[in-house]
Amino acid sequence: MQRPLILVSNDDGVTSKGIRHLVECMKELGEVVVVAPNSPQSGMGHAITIGNTLRLDKTDIFGEDVTAYESSGTPADCVKLAKHHVLKDRTPDLIVSGINHGSNTSISVLYSGTMSAAIEGAIEGYPSIGFSLCDYAQDAEFVHALDYVKAIAKQVLDKGLPKHTTLNVNFPPKRNEQIKGVKICRQARAKWEEEFDQRFDPNGRRYFWMAGNFVNFDKGEDNDEWAIANNYVSIVPCQFDLTAHHTISMLNDEWDIKI
Amino acid sequence: MQRPLILVSNDDGVTSKGIRHLVECMKELGEVVVVAPNSPQSGMGHAITIGNTLRLDKTDIFGEDVTAYESSGTPADCVKLAKHHVLKDRTPDLIVSGINHGSNTSISVLYSGTMSAAIEGAIEGYPSIGFSLCDYAQDAEFVHALDYVKAIAKQVLDKGLPKHTTLNVNFPPKRNEQIKGVKICRQARAKWEEEFDQRFDPNGRRYFWMAGNFVNFDKGEDNDEWAIANNYVSIVPCQFDLTAHHTISMLNDEWDIKI
Repeated sequence: MQRPLILVSNDDGVTSKGIRHLVECMKELGEVVVVAPNSPQSGMGHAITIGNTLRLDKTDIFGEDVTAYESSGTPADCVKLAKHHVLKDRTPDLIVSGINHGSNTSISVLYSGTMSAAIEGAIEGYPSIGFSLCDYAQDAEFVHALDYVKAIAKQVLDKGLPKHTTLNVNFPPKRNEQIKGVKICRQARAKWEEEFDQRFDPNGRRYFWMAGNFVNFDKGEDNDEWAIANNYVSIVPCQFDLTAHHTISMLNDEWDIKI
Repeated sequence: MQRPLILVSNDDGVTSKGIRHLVECMKELGEVVVVAPNSPQSGMGHAITIGNTLRLDKTDIFGEDVTAYESSGTPADCVKLAKHHVLKDRTPDLIVSGINHGSNTSISVLYSGTMSAAIEGAIEGYPSIGFSLCDYAQDAEFVHALDYVKAIAKQVLDKGLPKHTTLNVNFPPKRNEQIKGVKICRQARAKWEEEFDQRFDPNGRRYFWMAGNFVNFDKGEDNDEWAIANNYVSIVPCQFDLTAHHTISMLNDEWDIKI
């Protein structure tokens, strides 16, 4: 039987610790092709590169048995370049993105470059997963998550996913006790409450650093924030139809626009 | 009665034709504050600037009666900067973004910087609208859309929107016949089929331009692509919960992950 073809991308860049772990995990499951950004792209959301050129260069940093490219583009660009230029006529059996260094639970899914690579896969109709570690520490440990990375990828390879669905998988930080298991969740209702740190450059011109606190409004126990807080792996199945379907009839009833 | 406070942003940058039209329209409805990118940010999706500094500088290009700032940030950054640094304790009655030079129908809502400013408004709980013109011609004409821009903004100011909902409004290009009216729509099922134009720089190093064709799979007559093709203004109410709720029970039934 042919080994599955697995495309790996991320948003922390091709040299990050998270993607090296992910490549090692995926090598146990299939043939791995990497197309990932050549520099960190955190917070890039679903950005794509239009009006600018894109680089795509081969790299051997994952060893001889992994075909790998680094690109100047965003995570979404990387998946597009992989499909159209690297894989060409070959169809990936799975697209995985990550393992992101930092949380992509709740509203962060919108800002996440990691998830944009996974969503791009779903748009193309391929099974895809974004993996993130909810730990911002510089020396964050990924090892406790790796058995789950492999098990979740294997489930998707074996059982597939509904078309145009992707998984947003987040891992709790390493704690003394073992991860309790996996929870299928919905996206928590939460947001970032930004603060801007105002400073002045050596020329006296003002600039800002964005900082912020995560505010969770959600009291439910079926959401990804609850799962992480309680030491479970959270898996949110995601889709990309933003329509607020429930409001269509209301707007049709209440609105009256005539020009 | 106090005039409504209207925050204006966009992704084509503070000097673009579309934002000038939008500011003129909004001046008829309320007090206008502009915070917009200092350079074009098309295709930025919901990117935010983390790990880099942000500039925010006053500009007088909209005249004396409009408080306006240009920022080095993305459209989403602009809304965050506006809330936390420019408006401070004042609450906007409406956030509008655009008028984008180019379509943001269907799947383009995910790649759209215009819509990310509007969605950022919805995350903060403010009524918000993204406006886009489905015309990529360099000399695209916006004037035929302006009465609709005002009428739609006025409806939102008068009647509000369900909390955490934003509107993705697209206008057909100027045609010989008048726009037929407004349709409340869902997001069409469609995607971009990319092509990459491979070239070589003067040093012989390879680069790519992304190009692509829009492919519409959707045969319905209740979606935004249909509305634009039939010379209606399309209005898609949007929300930002990406959860594929209908798949949660399926995954719970079928999956079995034990480590």
